[in-house]
Amino acid sequence: MGGRALVQWEQNRDNAPASLEVDLYAGGPAPTRGLDGVTFYQVPYAPSTQGVDESTDVIARMPNLEVVQLVSAGYEQVLPLLPDHVTLCNGRGLHDASTAEHTLALLLAAQRDLPRWAVDQRDHRWGTVPQRSLADCRVLIVGYGSIGAAIERRLLPFETTVTRVASRARPEEDVHGVEGLHELLPDADAVVLVTPLTEATRGLFGAREFALLADDALVVNVGRGPVLDTGALLAQNGRVRAALDVTDPEPLPADHPLWEAPGVYITPHVAGGAASFYPRARAFMDAQLTRWAAGEPLANVVRTGR
Amino acid sequence: MGGRALVQWEQNRDNAPASLEVDLYAGGPAPTRGLDGVTFYQVPYAPSTQGVDESTDVIARMPNLEVVQLVSAGYEQVLPLLPDHVTLCNGRGLHDASTAEHTLALLLAAQRDLPRWAVDQRDHRWGTVPQRSLADCRVLIVGYGSIGAAIERRLLPFETTVTRVASRARPEEDVHGVEGLHELLPDADAVVLVTPLTEATRGLFGAREFALLADDALVVNVGRGPVLDTGALLAQNGRVRAALDVTDPEPLPADHPLWEAPGVYITPHVAGGAASFYPRARAFMDAQLTRWAAGEPLANVVRTGR
Repeated sequence: MGGRALVQWEQNRDNAPASLEVDLYAGGPAPTRGLDGVTFYQVPYAPSTQGVDESTDVIARMPNLEVVQLVSAGYEQVLPLLPDHVTLCNGRGLHDASTAEHTLALLLAAQRDLPRWAVDQRDHRWGTVPQRSLADCRVLIVGYGSIGAAIERRLLPFETTVTRVASRARPEEDVHGVEGLHELLPDADAVVLVTPLTEATRGLFGAREFALLADDALVVNVGRGPVLDTGALLAQNGRVRAALDVTDPEPLPADHPLWEAPGVYITPHVAGGAASFYPRARAFMDAQLTRWAAGEPLANVVRTGR
Repeated sequence: MGGRALVQWEQNRDNAPASLEVDLYAGGPAPTRGLDGVTFYQVPYAPSTQGVDESTDVIARMPNLEVVQLVSAGYEQVLPLLPDHVTLCNGRGLHDASTAEHTLALLLAAQRDLPRWAVDQRDHRWGTVPQRSLADCRVLIVGYGSIGAAIERRLLPFETTVTRVASRARPEEDVHGVEGLHELLPDADAVVLVTPLTEATRGLFGAREFALLADDALVVNVGRGPVLDTGALLAQNGRVRAALDVTDPEPLPADHPLWEAPGVYITPHVAGGAASFYPRARAFMDAQLTRWAAGEPLANVVRTGR
């Protein structure tokens, strides 16, 4: 596994095994020289861009590439750019701490009226209203995987009850299949949507699902915007509440009615990229480059080159 | 332990042992008849009143009183009203879940910019800024007792490090004495103040303590307002951040500069009284009345009648 690695962070260059030649590319204009020798390419992480840009287009100019490494979990946008012989690894797990803590932040914000207090502070108003609790809530996690488990670990000490739902039932882990969702909704105080966007999950939570929820229940979406039907949420008119880090459309235009929908709290797709992501991503990259240099199996392979 | 109990909640009357006569008084104008027979009096919980009112004044008209039961943790305001022979019990523990979850809400609000998103939502603005994390934070809990332990249980799954401080060191529980506070502050990313207000804790956190904190550290106060020196916080001018559920003065007047202080987030003393308090308080009262009827030792005795 010789050749040259192109990575984003100085720490990974400095910690790399001596047998590896490592250069830096942190995004922006792509390097114009030395691309021939690149065998391992970590696509720079840029939270503000979505999808394809110069940092992925440059893959076409790396004829000896063997591995493309992403530090995001999603990888669909890169697949069409990869020659068949290139192995793709993603950043599964690196965003879990950030996303899970933002999920708890949204749950607590909704239950403890944090948006109200922020606006009251701006208006210099001191006044209380009766407070809901997160304690005693029955929470459904829909899309129970690595992030869902991280959410659950943080939720349980709050004296909550968690029910796990995923695309396929895994009885040995007490995970319900999504075909049981409708039966579970009437007993949920809060539903956390943390699924990827696929044809199966697009519109997963719509009018029928909202109708099955009790009054004042809460839906939290930290997955992808189109998993939740925006029109169906607007039609709730506050009967069911929502806390959304992702929306459909996204970004939400200034004149969209969702901004003013009663019982809806919005954050601008900030769940996964908080400060805690960076040390986890750099530590993962150190270990991945060590594996690569030693010819050991890589972690987080999502497609093996042929 | 015969006689008559006066309590707040119907559940406690309905569940009381048959040997007890139980009547209801939920606050407001005090009963004018039957006070002679009252031996057990639960002072009604009213989150909006502070200190002494008709519900405590009525104690003077209960000549056969044996037990006064509070469901709040603080009890100093009632002590002067009690004849020597009356036993006083408090509500230690009943507010822990509510206060601990609000503490986490404040920590997450400050680290994940929740007040900013609430104001941005009101202005229909979608825009991100780099996000701090709660993960990896080193958190000092100052006033480590029952609530502090409840905060710690919720904090640890967030991949944080917790250091315990109390008025007296308890090495067997890894609790530092407050005399070690100054040594601990430089390494703290966040400090949670959850002490009662005593002459020892008034002004505990002032200019000297702020000066020992790193830039951008966070102070959370869920104890009592005067434990933190408001002037010293204002002088930080954003160098150290704060999330406060209690303030000094309280309520905060509309023209107070704390409302506009940079890096300060305020909630109006709502930590302890959320919905989860009520089922815990009613369950405690069921058990306490059963103990009383059976002549067993009461729980949460803070002063024994002589």
